[in-house]
Amino acid sequence: MSAILKQRVRYAPYLKKLRTAQECVPLFKDGDYLGWSGFTGVGAPKVIPTALADHVEQNNLKGKLGFNLFVGASAGPEESRWADLDMIKRRSPHQVGKPISKAINENRTLFFDKHLSMFPQDLTYGFYTRHKENDLLDFTIIEATAITEDGSIVPGPAVGGSPEMISVSDKIIIEVNTATPSFEGIHDIDMPVLPPHRKPYPYTTVHQRNGLTAIPVDPSKVVAIVESTHPDKVPNATPSDEMSRKIASHLVEFFEQEVKHGRLPENLLPLQSGIGNVANAIIEGLEASSFKNMTVWTEVMQDSFLPFLENGKIDFATSTSIRLSQDGFKKFFDNWDLFSQKVCLRSQVVSNSPEIIRRLGVIAMNTPVEFDIYGHANSTNVNGSRMLNGLGGSADFLRNAKLSIMHTPAARKTKTDPTGISCVVPFSSHIDQTEHDLDVFVTDFGLADLRGLAPKERVPLIIDNCAHPDYRDQLKEYYNRALFHCQKTKALHEPHSLVDAFKMHINLERNGTMKLDNWDVKF
Amino acid sequence: MSAILKQRVRYAPYLKKLRTAQECVPLFKDGDYLGWSGFTGVGAPKVIPTALADHVEQNNLKGKLGFNLFVGASAGPEESRWADLDMIKRRSPHQVGKPISKAINENRTLFFDKHLSMFPQDLTYGFYTRHKENDLLDFTIIEATAITEDGSIVPGPAVGGSPEMISVSDKIIIEVNTATPSFEGIHDIDMPVLPPHRKPYPYTTVHQRNGLTAIPVDPSKVVAIVESTHPDKVPNATPSDEMSRKIASHLVEFFEQEVKHGRLPENLLPLQSGIGNVANAIIEGLEASSFKNMTVWTEVMQDSFLPFLENGKIDFATSTSIRLSQDGFKKFFDNWDLFSQKVCLRSQVVSNSPEIIRRLGVIAMNTPVEFDIYGHANSTNVNGSRMLNGLGGSADFLRNAKLSIMHTPAARKTKTDPTGISCVVPFSSHIDQTEHDLDVFVTDFGLADLRGLAPKERVPLIIDNCAHPDYRDQLKEYYNRALFHCQKTKALHEPHSLVDAFKMHINLERNGTMKLDNWDVKF
Repeated sequence: MSAILKQRVRYAPYLKKLRTAQECVPLFKDGDYLGWSGFTGVGAPKVIPTALADHVEQNNLKGKLGFNLFVGASAGPEESRWADLDMIKRRSPHQVGKPISKAINENRTLFFDKHLSMFPQDLTYGFYTRHKENDLLDFTIIEATAITEDGSIVPGPAVGGSPEMISVSDKIIIEVNTATPSFEGIHDIDMPVLPPHRKPYPYTTVHQRNGLTAIPVDPSKVVAIVESTHPDKVPNATPSDEMSRKIASHLVEFFEQEVKHGRLPENLLPLQSGIGNVANAIIEGLEASSFKNMTVWTEVMQDSFLPFLENGKIDFATSTSIRLSQDGFKKFFDNWDLFSQKVCLRSQVVSNSPEIIRRLGVIAMNTPVEFDIYGHANSTNVNGSRMLNGLGGSADFLRNAKLSIMHTPAARKTKTDPTGISCVVPFSSHIDQTEHDLDVFVTDFGLADLRGLAPKERVPLIIDNCAHPDYRDQLKEYYNRALFHCQKTKALHEPHSLVDAFKMHINLERNGTMKLDNWDVKF
Repeated sequence: MSAILKQRVRYAPYLKKLRTAQECVPLFKDGDYLGWSGFTGVGAPKVIPTALADHVEQNNLKGKLGFNLFVGASAGPEESRWADLDMIKRRSPHQVGKPISKAINENRTLFFDKHLSMFPQDLTYGFYTRHKENDLLDFTIIEATAITEDGSIVPGPAVGGSPEMISVSDKIIIEVNTATPSFEGIHDIDMPVLPPHRKPYPYTTVHQRNGLTAIPVDPSKVVAIVESTHPDKVPNATPSDEMSRKIASHLVEFFEQEVKHGRLPENLLPLQSGIGNVANAIIEGLEASSFKNMTVWTEVMQDSFLPFLENGKIDFATSTSIRLSQDGFKKFFDNWDLFSQKVCLRSQVVSNSPEIIRRLGVIAMNTPVEFDIYGHANSTNVNGSRMLNGLGGSADFLRNAKLSIMHTPAARKTKTDPTGISCVVPFSSHIDQTEHDLDVFVTDFGLADLRGLAPKERVPLIIDNCAHPDYRDQLKEYYNRALFHCQKTKALHEPHSLVDAFKMHINLERNGTMKLDNWDVKF
């Protein structure tokens, strides 16, 4: 037993349950329901998933040892390995990474994506274990960075859905990660309460703390603790580029106008932003702007937030995970006194809570796969069928935010056409965010402010401001055909020509581009 | 001045502003932004809208005097008359009735439908008046049933969006309705607070009261009061029939099972239900069931609730409007002592609040136009383009409820085919509720419980349990074609054949039925 492990585990009875990951392997059986800690690729268990994957590989058990796997959002490389080994029969509520999406799209893994605020509560309702005899998760495997005197679990860089999973688990295994410093003191954890006994969440500011700094657990449910010395490994963030900086500059200008017209306060309102180069460019753009004393209420923080917190442009940031690169984590711990005063990690039902997002008036920003001329957006399924990442918290934020913004490049490349995919389409081939939820779309070409506009008023703004020039005439022609058709049927609220609605998508599948020879083409 | 008016208006200075409706007509000009009180056809202003319509009719002003009209939800027959006279240039967030939907579908009225919980708050943000010079509604015309000593307005049978409208109105006109008894004491009104100053809504039970019993108003903004002697006129409720009773019986059985498995308490959880014969049949079905001490948290109550409250099966019911027939209102006032103890009317931002709906664990039930084999639902647009009623509060409830249920007949008739429209389709031609929001679908043929199921697992349940037998084979064939197609493209998460996705809708438009000769037909 390492000295550091003894120091981290302040509840002695757990130390008697110390096992190696390999010793835990026989506990698991095919078809078990598992909860993992973790969110956006950090804070997930590592050594037990690795030992199980090794076990499957070494004993040719591919297809014979698979699980129903629930993680707050995406887990790390261990999940990818499980996907490749067909160890994930069922997965919810989110995932990221080629191996797992490949398993889903090849029908080796059944996936359902669910609002991240809702998944953990539905789990506590018994909705996802209703076909099981005992109505519980068989195991929750949770990564801790410390254990308190009463056996409570101090998570690492993610709280996610762990509080709820633990509350409905038959057995619990704790991986104590000694390769990372303890995160003790940074968390603010709300434990689940079921209707009709729920109280309001008290949070009225981003920095308010109300909950616990560790997750309480019934020690009798803890069947093993395992030491882990595997740090989280997150790739470096995608740098901003000219395209993403253009999007960011349209957005910063929009915010400046909103402040000028009195619709936003001078320090804006709490910001939510996603992951990726556009999100990073927006953060950089805001850093270069004149806004000060900003705050962040989001689900995940990235490296780009750190300088922003250091130089005081952001007063406080809260999320359910901090997804930092190895350099980022080093910086974070080197300046622990500063960052731990300005950062708080909460349960994902709280970080993504409709109640709090609406109360605070959050500004939400997310990237879609595509959106249509009336303002419906696809966040998940390419060409209607192929799962990309899942819904995540996009709809939690976009439905409830004061300002709901989606940003994307206007076009993407295919193998044969540098602008073969238009992100503006006649009819979204899958709809996760509806026209009733979204206020603003922005691409590298411009911004469409749709607030208070009827469907037909949105069309010219979306096409002229947001669509790639290669597609503007084609989209206008669709709209004119739709108008002509719906004039006849007296259905001019949101005119569509259903015969044509998906032709751009079909052409993409068949000919590698959304550019049509003409709209009369029949497929 | 009538004696009853003097008795109702307890703030004397208003009486000096007493005008006839006709005298108010010159106050209005083409293009004004108007807020009306009212919700679901009750509580809207009547005499001023009528005077304005008479004015347009008598002076041939059709097309020359039109307004941007905002009402909490739908207004009454006055709205229909305005629609026929082209007096509604723009309308939000909801509407019901043939004249107004006709105006929208003929492109005489621009309509945008918005979540009913969100519309009033977005109005207070200035989102819907952002093109105006003064950023305010020009007038709010509000029906009152009494005025308190400090000039506050006691609404009638609907609170709706009146508190927010009044807070952002340049001028206010009050119609004091003396034909109906005063509703004083039944309301619990929350006035708007903007971020970053919002506090939690304190409600943790359906009967909790916290707000005001009247809407405070700056008396200097009140430019006129007008006496109204027009009672609300609501048609008698559609009676239940065999179809709707079948739906209700599937649902009651489902609830019984949920209680048995411990996923619902014995008195269920607060119920939300819509308007129409299915909603009525469900209420009747629950009344005949063994459930007791039930509660209701909904947006509108109908006649069917009254016996239920009288006999004590429902302990308490709260909504933002009570839409009763004339007989219903008579019964309500004859038993005021009982009903006013068991009923509370709130602002629509509260009745439809995601925060409270989620906290209380509401059971939400709504009727869609159609839903698809993966569980996306269309609440608004027939064949993708033709506006029916608007979104209403459906998504407020369905997104946030503990149990989100949609119910509809499995098929509807066309002129030539008694089952010419299938309510189960391959791909919803408009999507207002996504697969991520809905738990249960029920038709006269059965119930599909989709909780925790991946898209492909939902398909057989939806088709076999919910679709009309006339369409089951056809829908299965679509699914098989989609599987075949997506096997090739390795996109098997939510398999679609986009070439075929809308063929049933197109066939309906062209041939009066969704029954296809075969799936290879090309349009």
